[in-house]
Amino acid sequence: MNSETICALATAPGGAIGIIRISGPQSLEILSRIFTKDVTTAQPNTIHYGHIQTPSPSEGLGEVVDEVLVSVFRAPHSYTGEDSAEISCHGSRYILNKVLELLIQHGCRMANPGEYTQRAFLNGKMDLSQAEAVADLIASTNKATHQIAMSQLRGHFSSKLAQLREQLLKLTSLLELELDFSDHEDLEFADRTELLELAQRVEAHITHLSQTFETGNALKNGIPVAIVGAPNVGKSTLLNALLGEERAIVSDIQGTTRDAIEDTIQLGDVTFRFIDTAGIRHTDDQIENLGIERSIAATQRARIIIMMTEPGVPYPDIAVRDDQTIIRIENKTATFQAKFGVGLDNLRQRLIDAAPKTSDSDVIVTNARHYEALNRAHGHLQRVINGLHQQISGDLLSEDLRQTLDTLAEITGGQITPNEVLGNIFKNFCVGK
Amino acid sequence: MNSETICALATAPGGAIGIIRISGPQSLEILSRIFTKDVTTAQPNTIHYGHIQTPSPSEGLGEVVDEVLVSVFRAPHSYTGEDSAEISCHGSRYILNKVLELLIQHGCRMANPGEYTQRAFLNGKMDLSQAEAVADLIASTNKATHQIAMSQLRGHFSSKLAQLREQLLKLTSLLELELDFSDHEDLEFADRTELLELAQRVEAHITHLSQTFETGNALKNGIPVAIVGAPNVGKSTLLNALLGEERAIVSDIQGTTRDAIEDTIQLGDVTFRFIDTAGIRHTDDQIENLGIERSIAATQRARIIIMMTEPGVPYPDIAVRDDQTIIRIENKTATFQAKFGVGLDNLRQRLIDAAPKTSDSDVIVTNARHYEALNRAHGHLQRVINGLHQQISGDLLSEDLRQTLDTLAEITGGQITPNEVLGNIFKNFCVGK
Repeated sequence: MNSETICALATAPGGAIGIIRISGPQSLEILSRIFTKDVTTAQPNTIHYGHIQTPSPSEGLGEVVDEVLVSVFRAPHSYTGEDSAEISCHGSRYILNKVLELLIQHGCRMANPGEYTQRAFLNGKMDLSQAEAVADLIASTNKATHQIAMSQLRGHFSSKLAQLREQLLKLTSLLELELDFSDHEDLEFADRTELLELAQRVEAHITHLSQTFETGNALKNGIPVAIVGAPNVGKSTLLNALLGEERAIVSDIQGTTRDAIEDTIQLGDVTFRFIDTAGIRHTDDQIENLGIERSIAATQRARIIIMMTEPGVPYPDIAVRDDQTIIRIENKTATFQAKFGVGLDNLRQRLIDAAPKTSDSDVIVTNARHYEALNRAHGHLQRVINGLHQQISGDLLSEDLRQTLDTLAEITGGQITPNEVLGNIFKNFCVGK
Repeated sequence: MNSETICALATAPGGAIGIIRISGPQSLEILSRIFTKDVTTAQPNTIHYGHIQTPSPSEGLGEVVDEVLVSVFRAPHSYTGEDSAEISCHGSRYILNKVLELLIQHGCRMANPGEYTQRAFLNGKMDLSQAEAVADLIASTNKATHQIAMSQLRGHFSSKLAQLREQLLKLTSLLELELDFSDHEDLEFADRTELLELAQRVEAHITHLSQTFETGNALKNGIPVAIVGAPNVGKSTLLNALLGEERAIVSDIQGTTRDAIEDTIQLGDVTFRFIDTAGIRHTDDQIENLGIERSIAATQRARIIIMMTEPGVPYPDIAVRDDQTIIRIENKTATFQAKFGVGLDNLRQRLIDAAPKTSDSDVIVTNARHYEALNRAHGHLQRVINGLHQQISGDLLSEDLRQTLDTLAEITGGQITPNEVLGNIFKNFCVGK
């Protein structure tokens, strides 16, 4: 338990109501010094009406700062696991600053970003990946990222990792059994089929989790869509039509679009990130050639490629991968006219259909720290598998196995997490969470 | 009681937490349909942890939208006087929109601006001037406006008006007594000294209240300060130094400042509104002359006039009123150099000293509707006083007396307030309050 009592504004400034959060062992004592009621003996999960008042020069309380509602929470049944309170104030900056000032005068200190959630983690209210999900949940802007964060917050990723951990522990005990056996009987290495199968099953799961990262990132930052086609077939016009604003410069002059412009739109519950690309053609204009190179690079990053053409112009000749969805559009025809919005609804639906689907029980990795740990765990486990193949002695494999376990445990913070790592995780949280 | 149940976001979007407010007879029923717990029988002023979930296609609840805390309030002990609830969500726009959407699907409608406070008024939880103070309190940015709004919210203005009302009712009954007396005894008019004294006392109070409006406005919008002086003595430099930014164009060319520029600064707990004025001098430049005229008008509106000069230049020759505070500054001397910040702290202190002082028990009128009603009430009462002087019969005065009472009652909404007036009052509130 932390001995300091912290306070912070938990809502955005402005608005009708502002919530100030207090957490730590002194929460209710400090609050009671500036509140018209003594809440030190209040029942948990109860709400109390009263005034926040400045200390009076003489006895008792001074000026009324605000009429407020105070919510009382008691350890361990609170968000942080500590005694805490929330003050629901009128949402004026003057009032909110004044209340924070009073709390600090009476013994609170301002909370650091994410410090409430960090305390929740340290007090065992959630594991580290769940704590990280809190920030993702607050930042989520569409259904997919919301579902991923909510699934992670509810521990689906954590229990997936717990399952893998269980299987790795089983592998460990099988290896120890093998060691005991080989010690006592002085026999050749045992049949490792079962061990290998188990290790490969775990390896496949880790690989799968690691592969979800690309999808996770696409859903988080927008699914990358490249619009490619010969110059002047209407790529910028299409982008503008989809974005609903004059985002790219449109002109009739060939080669107008030199910079790859990125912008996102929300279709249904999915965010798409459009990459407008300079018309792909051969030119002597150096700057334009630079743009073309960038376009080709952009198509490599895209998950969906809209190949655009017009009557009499061939489709662009670019290499595509199996995991890229191609949508072909012939512009300036009866069924499609980007300039007049003809066929746009149909295109929007094809984009939505091409987006990866998620459900709230899916485990999708969106966090770079988790991805990196999964990859390291995968490396350790791969060495175990290689060793099993090469009939390397079990005691030489147990270190890699232990590192696999430890590396996976980093994700949920099951291992003791260095302060520096914690600092990095929580520094990007908002203050008040 | 209103039969509709309303919902709205009560906090600003963004932030760690977002609060959604529900109020109306169906609050707890509607909430229980999308919440994992049945709160229809929950104790008032209690907090409940659970999930907000979408309806499932089959039985029961569907996807988890958020893990939330629900606060339950019961009529009449709630802000609105109705059954209400607050849902404390993670502050993601996606979540907040989704929860509002679910509430609306299940029978709530979106609240209008100020509708919670309007209901609080209609349900007798506060009078109209207190309801208006809620908006002022949220908008308050400094100590003075905060104190005025808090004083009004706590009913100091209302009880002042109640006192006046009591005295006017006493006057009414004295007039009726006089009528009874004159009817039965057929005598000349009674001695009206007492009546006149009473009416004049009330009149003096109303006049005083009405006069606080100017101070109230100055404290609300910033105390108007005009900086006047001959061209090129450094008025714009001084303004920039006080504002701490390059707000006005400064140049060495005479007559650079043509437009009166207004900006506010906060000194201590007071807001000042600075009026930079074109250098006052005689010129043939028509546009500049326009600027000069505006400057002179500006000095009329100022409560504080900083008269600025430099060695060898006379102070500007302008008329000032008794209620204006004059601060004289000789620039470009050892004790004052606007350009280098010399003497600025001293000037700031003089400005603070010149500002009107308030305490949280002061009744200061800041609301134009109240000011207008006070002036009308004053007019009616003045006719009563004139009538008393002119020995006009009591039954002819009683109508004016009744109108004085009714007009004062408009302020607190004691009279039935037309919907149009209510609409105008609450339309400027934020949604969620």
